[in-house]
Amino acid sequence: MTDARFGLDRTATLGALALDGGGTLAAVEVAYETYGTLAPDASNAILICHALTGDQHVASTHPRTGKPGWWARMVGPGKPIDTDRWCVVASNVIGSCLGSSGPASGDPATGRPYAMAFPVITIRDMVRAQAMLLDHLGIGTLAAVVGGSMGGMQALSWAATFPDRVRACVTLASAARHSAQNIAFHEVGRQAIMADPNWANGNYYDGAAPTAGLAVARMAAHITYLSEAGLTAKFGRKLQARDTKTFGFDADFQVESYLRHQGLAFTDRFDANSYLYITRALDYFDLAEEHGGHLARAFAGSRTRFCLVSFDTDWLYPTSESRGIVHALNAAGAPASFVELKSPFGHDAFLLDSPELDRVMAGFLGAAA
Amino acid sequence: MTDARFGLDRTATLGALALDGGGTLAAVEVAYETYGTLAPDASNAILICHALTGDQHVASTHPRTGKPGWWARMVGPGKPIDTDRWCVVASNVIGSCLGSSGPASGDPATGRPYAMAFPVITIRDMVRAQAMLLDHLGIGTLAAVVGGSMGGMQALSWAATFPDRVRACVTLASAARHSAQNIAFHEVGRQAIMADPNWANGNYYDGAAPTAGLAVARMAAHITYLSEAGLTAKFGRKLQARDTKTFGFDADFQVESYLRHQGLAFTDRFDANSYLYITRALDYFDLAEEHGGHLARAFAGSRTRFCLVSFDTDWLYPTSESRGIVHALNAAGAPASFVELKSPFGHDAFLLDSPELDRVMAGFLGAAA
Repeated sequence: MTDARFGLDRTATLGALALDGGGTLAAVEVAYETYGTLAPDASNAILICHALTGDQHVASTHPRTGKPGWWARMVGPGKPIDTDRWCVVASNVIGSCLGSSGPASGDPATGRPYAMAFPVITIRDMVRAQAMLLDHLGIGTLAAVVGGSMGGMQALSWAATFPDRVRACVTLASAARHSAQNIAFHEVGRQAIMADPNWANGNYYDGAAPTAGLAVARMAAHITYLSEAGLTAKFGRKLQARDTKTFGFDADFQVESYLRHQGLAFTDRFDANSYLYITRALDYFDLAEEHGGHLARAFAGSRTRFCLVSFDTDWLYPTSESRGIVHALNAAGAPASFVELKSPFGHDAFLLDSPELDRVMAGFLGAAA
Repeated sequence: MTDARFGLDRTATLGALALDGGGTLAAVEVAYETYGTLAPDASNAILICHALTGDQHVASTHPRTGKPGWWARMVGPGKPIDTDRWCVVASNVIGSCLGSSGPASGDPATGRPYAMAFPVITIRDMVRAQAMLLDHLGIGTLAAVVGGSMGGMQALSWAATFPDRVRACVTLASAARHSAQNIAFHEVGRQAIMADPNWANGNYYDGAAPTAGLAVARMAAHITYLSEAGLTAKFGRKLQARDTKTFGFDADFQVESYLRHQGLAFTDRFDANSYLYITRALDYFDLAEEHGGHLARAFAGSRTRFCLVSFDTDWLYPTSESRGIVHALNAAGAPASFVELKSPFGHDAFLLDSPELDRVMAGFLGAAA
């Protein structure tokens, strides 16, 4: 007998969710997937939290792009997050556009998409929706919560918000708050979307989407995901399918062509309003602020084991951010391990092939037995 | 008796200019200013080259903004570039929009603005137009050519293209080529402009300008002019004229408000097409490539004295770029001095108050006596 709550491509309609911003989402929908089998005592669940433009398709084919899941190299039978042992849960964050409640969802008040009437949400709101999903699945305590980038922020927020429900927390390439530079880059992206006439104050669901603005937003963000050295190694000043410069405005350089492709491809799989809402949630994130300005207080009395990983060429969420979190964990007396890994790939390194990361992940989770 | 060629707010119509891209500009117009008095033997001329969005108003009121010249703190009587001693020449680069030939200029072939029919130009083309201006002014050899950022590239190009006309070269916060990351940020800006429907393939001079796209381009670029630490020190996560977050999409954070203002203010003083052309010239710049891939060859046999200055928090043109130029100068046997200055202000540091920079500048130019 199979339990229909588990498997790929699931959606749960949960209860009402009171939001940090003061409003309430009436009937939260959460799209999710599970991999592996939940133990009878529900003790082997690992929640994986995705990054800004990620989704629940951690290790399954993406329904819009047809590509493998974004962390298929990390999650699966015999992989570092071994689904022969763990029951992995991955949900689409609220505010997003892959099935969970977001600006493209129907507003019960009007029967039409929320658009900008969707409430502004926070990282903690995302986490609360995930907790409701775990209740639905009968999972009381997580063996671990794991995430990179925005997923790492959710992991930290999980440990701070539901300390008794998280035995271990793995935070990769992340931060406990968004810096002024982080906010600045996001604001460029938001302004690019809002400058697109097709955006129409968010009411574009019946017409053409603001793809040009969203593509520019993605291009700007994409630069921050890569290291300067990585860009130089990959592209340098190499020309794109030509021997000489054209003295025009075509994509002469490979890096231009690459960025344009990244921008355009993104618009096929992502909703511009979701990009606005999720970047806003990121900018609002400041875990210390939620605890009187003291990050250590977020983890006071915590019995969660923490593992933090940063990458030396990540300038979006540099090692100093992870180190600050470790200091706070130390001050709170929480067990924390921390490693800075070498990689030429900047922030994106946490998504890419890294035997060192695999060893850290498998080793840390293995010790959770 | 005054010589009408000298003074503020001048324009010269010069001859035809053959361009690196293969075309020719028929009658090049160059808008310029001079400060100080040219010696009878024309031996005391210093050419100042401006950055991407700079202009000839080095030390005079900007005609559109009403603000002081962009380097008024550096240039004037008794200042580090002392106009009691030097005759300073500053011209608007071709391709720009403050009076020199650019995409907004009239195309003799049609009588209407060139728009995108303006030829793509290079940094060396800008320098050749400046050389024609010096011919017009009766200045054979420069005591020095001085520039920061794109101005520094022009200064290097001057030394490489006209070695016998440059006794000294001062290059601040600059590079000998545009990196993949530099190109990537510019491509974001260009795509933001071109995504604005008002851009209309460049033919907007009779209608509304693509101000929204240009503002986004400026915002993205502006982040690269500041250091992460500088942004944190100046703005951090401080809110803008409010005590709590609004849970909306207004400019809650000061850094958002600041960036929006920078973007909008820029559109009052700059032409979007000029932004396309000048960023293209920057991306094409690779001084080594012009010399068989060997930067040292650009300076072979040079008797110019070089002074390079970088700033430790400049991540747009980091110190490693200046150091690479110094190595090439050393290999070429050219006299070169180099200093990395400390500043919290990132790339913009070369424009800001810096007693150390003032001392370096005055000392280096003084030794030119």
